[in-house]
Amino acid sequence: AIAQGCSEYNITVVLKQEDCVRALRAAHSRFFLSKTTLAIGVIGPGLIGATLLNQLRDQQVAILKENMNIDVRVIGITGASTMLLSETGVDLTRWKEEMQKEAKPADLANFVRHLSEDHVFPNKVLVDCTADTNVASHYYDWLKKGIHVITPNKKANSGPLDRYLKLRTLQRASYTHYFYEATVGAGLPIISTLRGLLETGDKILRIEGIFSGTLSYIFNNFEGTRSFSDVVAEAKEAGYTEPDPRDDLSGTDVARKVIILARESGLRLELSDIPVESLVPEALKSCSSPNEFMQKLPSFDQDWARQRHEAEAAGEVLRYVGAVDVLNGKGRVELQRYKRDHPFAQLSGSDNIIAFTTSRYKEQPLIVRGPGAGAEVTAGGVFCDILRLASYLGAPS
Amino acid sequence: AIAQGCSEYNITVVLKQEDCVRALRAAHSRFFLSKTTLAIGVIGPGLIGATLLNQLRDQQVAILKENMNIDVRVIGITGASTMLLSETGVDLTRWKEEMQKEAKPADLANFVRHLSEDHVFPNKVLVDCTADTNVASHYYDWLKKGIHVITPNKKANSGPLDRYLKLRTLQRASYTHYFYEATVGAGLPIISTLRGLLETGDKILRIEGIFSGTLSYIFNNFEGTRSFSDVVAEAKEAGYTEPDPRDDLSGTDVARKVIILARESGLRLELSDIPVESLVPEALKSCSSPNEFMQKLPSFDQDWARQRHEAEAAGEVLRYVGAVDVLNGKGRVELQRYKRDHPFAQLSGSDNIIAFTTSRYKEQPLIVRGPGAGAEVTAGGVFCDILRLASYLGAPS
Ligand SMILES: NC(=O)c1ccc[n+]([C@@H]2O[C@H](COP(=O)([O-])OP(=O)(O)OC[C@H]3O[C@@H](n4cnc5c(N)ncnc54)[C@H](OP(=O)(O)O)[C@@H]3O)[C@@H](O)[C@H]2O)c1
Ligand SMILES: NC(=O)c1ccc[n+]([C@@H]2O[C@H](COP(=O)([O-])OP(=O)(O)OC[C@H]3O[C@@H](n4cnc5c(N)ncnc54)[C@H](OP(=O)(O)O)[C@@H]3O)[C@@H](O)[C@H]2O)c1
Repeated sequence: AIAQGCSEYNITVVLKQEDCVRALRAAHSRFFLSKTTLAIGVIGPGLIGATLLNQLRDQQVAILKENMNIDVRVIGITGASTMLLSETGVDLTRWKEEMQKEAKPADLANFVRHLSEDHVFPNKVLVDCTADTNVASHYYDWLKKGIHVITPNKKANSGPLDRYLKLRTLQRASYTHYFYEATVGAGLPIISTLRGLLETGDKILRIEGIFSGTLSYIFNNFEGTRSFSDVVAEAKEAGYTEPDPRDDLSGTDVARKVIILARESGLRLELSDIPVESLVPEALKSCSSPNEFMQKLPSFDQDWARQRHEAEAAGEVLRYVGAVDVLNGKGRVELQRYKRDHPFAQLSGSDNIIAFTTSRYKEQPLIVRGPGAGAEVTAGGVFCDILRLASYLGAPS
Repeated sequence: AIAQGCSEYNITVVLKQEDCVRALRAAHSRFFLSKTTLAIGVIGPGLIGATLLNQLRDQQVAILKENMNIDVRVIGITGASTMLLSETGVDLTRWKEEMQKEAKPADLANFVRHLSEDHVFPNKVLVDCTADTNVASHYYDWLKKGIHVITPNKKANSGPLDRYLKLRTLQRASYTHYFYEATVGAGLPIISTLRGLLETGDKILRIEGIFSGTLSYIFNNFEGTRSFSDVVAEAKEAGYTEPDPRDDLSGTDVARKVIILARESGLRLELSDIPVESLVPEALKSCSSPNEFMQKLPSFDQDWARQRHEAEAAGEVLRYVGAVDVLNGKGRVELQRYKRDHPFAQLSGSDNIIAFTTSRYKEQPLIVRGPGAGAEVTAGGVFCDILRLASYLGAPS
């Protein structure tokens, strides 16, 4: 009845000054456009960033405009040294060429200004596809400016607790969104699943998982037929490890994922609160090169063989896991033994696996499993966040 | 710059008449309220509906108002025979008592009118927690009225194809939402995961899963120690089966889930296009009671034992699966054999498991596993949809 028979309408809106720009933006996208428009700035066109740009290119016409009514425009791309700015949107079929031809020296402040001063597109998002701590330190300011943030970069959520809490508080109190599904398990639905459980009142008891594709591969294949160092060498040659395998074996990356899940579950922990069992032998920490490390690793094979034997004798296997014990407010990263019929024992390839034990999923956990790294799946996870954002801004589902 | 320095603002909006009410509703919730309000009508306060109402009660203050800024009000509850209507929201701590004391004879048309004529809450959603085909046949009209629809009821999405397509077309073209996560896998993130893959341009090749908790339990426990009929009897006594176990063993419910996933993947199939291998022996289809059926089932144990033996001899196990072959445009429901190291072979309890094989997840599928039935997890899935809706309507994430 509030608007029956009306065909023109006057709305007078009294707004706090600070809400004004945001409200007008919302009004703009809701009333004047049938499409939801989204201006994107991509930071870090490396493996993930480039794949994302290509996925956006492939979906732009087919899905975004026709089926979902979203008009996504990449109006800037910046690497560490050069950046490309556009008024109307970069032509994604030739962004690499344009980046080479038209690019200016990179300047993050100017890049962000270009995005935030744009008047054509009311909704703006910065997609951080770097692994950079400095880039991550700007999220707070960007959210404060009303720019949404989406990222696969773990640095902000696994950095200092006080900064993390400030970021969350700001984001919760605003209509500005911050999504980071791809920080854990890449494209696998981990963060969104955890949020769904929490928000609907489930109580998380424990989260346990194999979060490193590299370490998953190593232990899935360390079955008694080859030595431990052989399996690591094989993983390195297949390109599964970082250039220096110690970066995987140290467990630091797993610890970052554990802290992200712990904080998401409400625990106020610092990264340093997570005990991490490094698989790099003390004596090899000082090796000056990956080569030297790989050469010396075989001298520890006997110890590894013994551990594997002991596990096998008990009907168990070795797995490198991260765990959040929500009830006791703790996290840990360590080598564990699992019975052969445990879901973690039955893994193959370089799959990640994550098990949520909750009040509702108590007898049997909710489990997500699959590749947790790789360009296409990770970029797909970031892309999912972009579409989630678009939906939140008013696109039909 | 469009609104710098303003503290009051006049917006004149020219709208097509049909968009008017909806736009004003959006304006109402966006401008005048800091909260997103959502008026809910719950149809079917049975096992799932009642659990949902209790979950809403438990979360109402803690999360909805304080953390997420959503004001959810249940302004009506209707069963098959009685209904309860409220102007300001049912007191969820005593909805059962009120339902007994205040209830009127159920009348779905009046129930919907009560919701749609409410002027306090701009956003309205009907949550259908029945298994009723007639209730499901109204979704189209409700969406057309601007009422969102959320349901765990499989009937609409597995019903006649032309009606399904009409429903999807209407919903895609509007800002009115239709969510049904709990129709497949209950609270497990299945539909949302599938959508995320599709919308970001992944190509679904195959979806395969164990979609029946009952049949999962039966085959996980049919390991050679007990006869098939003993395992079915055990499942029946534990309350895992429908009152008549033939309703599970027929495979119809699995076929409904397969058709939902097939259609979600873009296939235009009727339920009758899915060949279903019924596990009810031809001779027992005519048994007049569940008791008679259970009494006669042992005469088929030998055949089951033989099938199990043959599988075992090949290092395999029996599993009852549903599959969507997207490339060839087909679906099927059948008893299958899997190698012992296949993820489906390693199931336990009454878990569901669903594997998505896609262009991105080709070597190793994306797998979701866990309890796929039960009051708390199913209601949790419906609740997730309610919060998703609230986010789409403007609540901070
Ligand atoms: N790869 C995976 O499978 C995977 C999975 C999950 C999450 N992630 C995360 O995704 C992110 C990207 O990974 P990636 O594999 O794509 O890494 P990458 O190939 O090394 O790409 C990183 C990109 O960031 C750019 N960059 C670095 N510092 C920058 C700065 N200060 N300003 C602007 N650009 C900067 C680099 O530009 P230059 O080339 O100009 O230096 C490069 O384009 C990381 O946070 C990673 O942890 C990756
Ligand atoms: N149970 C599970 O684990 C599970 C899992 C996934 C999905 N689901 C789905 O969730 C839905 C509900 O399941 P449930 O286990 O809660 O069933 P239930 O306990 O039998 O409850 C059904 C409710 O629907 C009501 N109802 C039936 N026809 C109605 C009508 N025409 N108008 C209004 N109310 C009507 C019934 O009311 P009266 O009592 O007054 O007849 C009852 O309250 C079903 O679609 C089911 O397939 C269930």
